[in-house]
Amino acid sequence: MKHTISVLVENTSGVLSRITGLFSRRGFNIDSLAVGITDDPAISRVTIVADGDEHTVEQLEKQLNKLIDVIKVKSFNPDEMISRELVLVKVNCSSDQQRSEIMNIVSLTDAKIVDITPSTVTIEISDWAVKLRNFEDLIRPYGILEMVRTGVVAIQRGAKEITEKKKK
Amino acid sequence: MKHTISVLVENTSGVLSRITGLFSRRGFNIDSLAVGITDDPAISRVTIVADGDEHTVEQLEKQLNKLIDVIKVKSFNPDEMISRELVLVKVNCSSDQQRSEIMNIVSLTDAKIVDITPSTVTIEISDWAVKLRNFEDLIRPYGILEMVRTGVVAIQRGAKEITEKKKK
Repeated sequence: MKHTISVLVENTSGVLSRITGLFSRRGFNIDSLAVGITDDPAISRVTIVADGDEHTVEQLEKQLNKLIDVIKVKSFNPDEMISRELVLVKVNCSSDQQRSEIMNIVSLTDAKIVDITPSTVTIEISDWAVKLRNFEDLIRPYGILEMVRTGVVAIQRGAKEITEKKKK
Repeated sequence: MKHTISVLVENTSGVLSRITGLFSRRGFNIDSLAVGITDDPAISRVTIVADGDEHTVEQLEKQLNKLIDVIKVKSFNPDEMISRELVLVKVNCSSDQQRSEIMNIVSLTDAKIVDITPSTVTIEISDWAVKLRNFEDLIRPYGILEMVRTGVVAIQRGAKEITEKKKK
């Protein structure tokens, strides 16, 4: 089963290495990992999607909590999270016919064209997993030249927050 | 100076730990790091934004190229890349007045409201760095409760691609 975990960390040069080292030592393959600063530039938030059973993920959470510079760990309940990922994809597109077909796909999936050449278009889309998969299925027949994904980020539905002030 | 580097890697459990370990050993602070699979699920693409002078970044590229499971390393010329980041942000919003103000900001910045409660709204926005900073400046006065960012991903402008088939 896929698990989405948010980790609030002090923004130090070693913390990411300690987190990925923990996953690697336990043989956990990370599906996606995204790191960005939070509202407080001294604190980063790492979102990890990994596969594993309930017990193993619980153990992993405990181990994460013990790491230096880790402030808070939260595993999301899939029903209570909003998750999103951003994808940039460059596809073959060299005729007027293909351009109008791709424009239809783009407008129906709420994507955006961000670059165009005589032989390619580059498209930006952000959505949750199932919608992104649908989009990829529609665009794949044209020939995907290059694709880059941010990895998933998630936030709790409702008014609750997981932010916590920096430990002193 | 900020550098954006794309690293194509074999999708193994240790590769991310080796990459982040390299940055950490060299005392490099990573501004953002995003990992997702590519069109080929056996290959992941890591996008790293880090601060440093030209020489140090060149050294880092060389070291990255030597790592096991690293297929290709590319440093982007800022003029030739399209970069994007996705942000989810939960802000205070408890009156009708605030709701219409926030709706204006959202529609003017091409953001989306993804969740709403009597006291909060959660907004999704994806754009490049300067536009995201402008959005944050507009939204900050309402009170940011929680913010999560994917980290930056980048793709080369034009028809060229950096994708390379898996080494055998």
